[in-house]
Amino acid sequence: MVTVLKLGGSVITDKDRPETLDGEALAAAADAIAAALADGAVDDLVVVHGGGSFGHHHADEHGVTTDTGSRDAGEVMAVHGAVKTLNRFVLSRLHDRDVPALPVHPLSAASRDADAALSMPTDQVATMLDEGFVPVLHGDGVVHAGEGVTVVSGDELVTHLARRLAADRVGLCSTVPGVLDADGDVIPEIRAFEDAADALGASDSTDVTGGMAAKVRELLALGAPSYVFGPDALADFLAGDDVGTRIE
Amino acid sequence: MVTVLKLGGSVITDKDRPETLDGEALAAAADAIAAALADGAVDDLVVVHGGGSFGHHHADEHGVTTDTGSRDAGEVMAVHGAVKTLNRFVLSRLHDRDVPALPVHPLSAASRDADAALSMPTDQVATMLDEGFVPVLHGDGVVHAGEGVTVVSGDELVTHLARRLAADRVGLCSTVPGVLDADGDVIPEIRAFEDAADALGASDSTDVTGGMAAKVRELLALGAPSYVFGPDALADFLAGDDVGTRIE
Repeated sequence: MVTVLKLGGSVITDKDRPETLDGEALAAAADAIAAALADGAVDDLVVVHGGGSFGHHHADEHGVTTDTGSRDAGEVMAVHGAVKTLNRFVLSRLHDRDVPALPVHPLSAASRDADAALSMPTDQVATMLDEGFVPVLHGDGVVHAGEGVTVVSGDELVTHLARRLAADRVGLCSTVPGVLDADGDVIPEIRAFEDAADALGASDSTDVTGGMAAKVRELLALGAPSYVFGPDALADFLAGDDVGTRIE
Repeated sequence: MVTVLKLGGSVITDKDRPETLDGEALAAAADAIAAALADGAVDDLVVVHGGGSFGHHHADEHGVTTDTGSRDAGEVMAVHGAVKTLNRFVLSRLHDRDVPALPVHPLSAASRDADAALSMPTDQVATMLDEGFVPVLHGDGVVHAGEGVTVVSGDELVTHLARRLAADRVGLCSTVPGVLDADGDVIPEIRAFEDAADALGASDSTDVTGGMAAKVRELLALGAPSYVFGPDALADFLAGDDVGTRIE
């Protein structure tokens, strides 16, 4: 059973300080992952983490977004180097807990065509799962026809991987406890965009890599249940429970 | 015109000392590459470097070869981390000379099936070339169905890339000045394996990742001229000259 888990960049880093880890939050997430693998609650697990204050800082500085690129190798390496550093922290915390995590860097594997469509073959990820490893991907630069190198977000990687690997469950662990309604309460289930359209309308423009509304549309289009939840619910998600907002 | 250039691990590292760069040799190679790109002698260039004393040291220590793998993430990371360190040195020397080099790590992009056949999609490499970058790959670990992670050599990557990118010229810069005959002289041209069979017979078993004989067979099977030459001939190779041994 394939599970794709996104650890939000804002969960594992300190958003307000460039290239600063939230070591406690990352350790707690690594504990939950290690425990779920050790007791067999999860078997085939793919982890994707955002770039957090490592990636965004450099991407903002050089004006690189998901559709505006750079052809300056120094700028690309600033973004790529920073997210690789964050990836090394994530891998190291997982290795400390005997999770056989291996890095998969999207800049090495993915590309966008002139219409910005993402292409990333996933045989390497599927073979890592079959061989008992936990592939760990991350928001990164991606070479983009006609644009140089643009950004690929962790969320985009999650839906791409979930589709290509025919994932059974998808989890988005972020700093909010779920998709919130107009009163700020968690919507327990979304089966159609209309279920949450009122609440989501306003958040469409809050995130450069696509707001919650776009995220919900993407997740509704997957063939698997997805969950949006906060860090406190990670262990329960990995145990197979319904947590936060279920989207299917 | 696509050129695939291999920088042998024994050229750019000190073979006898673990994880030791041959800084002078690497600087000279980076100079030749930067000059050839600056004067337009070469346009689309893919660089592949071996693991040298960075990769082999750790691979030997853990008994990891091209067909015997490891499922220990710590062992895999020892090999992968070491060749990434070497790759950072290579990239940095190229960046110092304004070569827009970007890393492509094979562990992130490639896999082997149960018959050990290498699969590595190359859209990302082709798009990097189209966008004016110089992709830099390297000998690395590669996930391998039924084996965990095995080794992929720089030479194997070169023939794979040359075939998939329909390369126009292939260069293997190693510590020998060419394919040598029984008297130790460079064979200027090999058009059929028989041209060099006598000289190559003996070297079949000298390299764990395939001796010179296997290399020549692979290169003969490509649709492009390949050259085996020493570091002193790199600038001439990049200028378009026939150097060392021409294999076609």
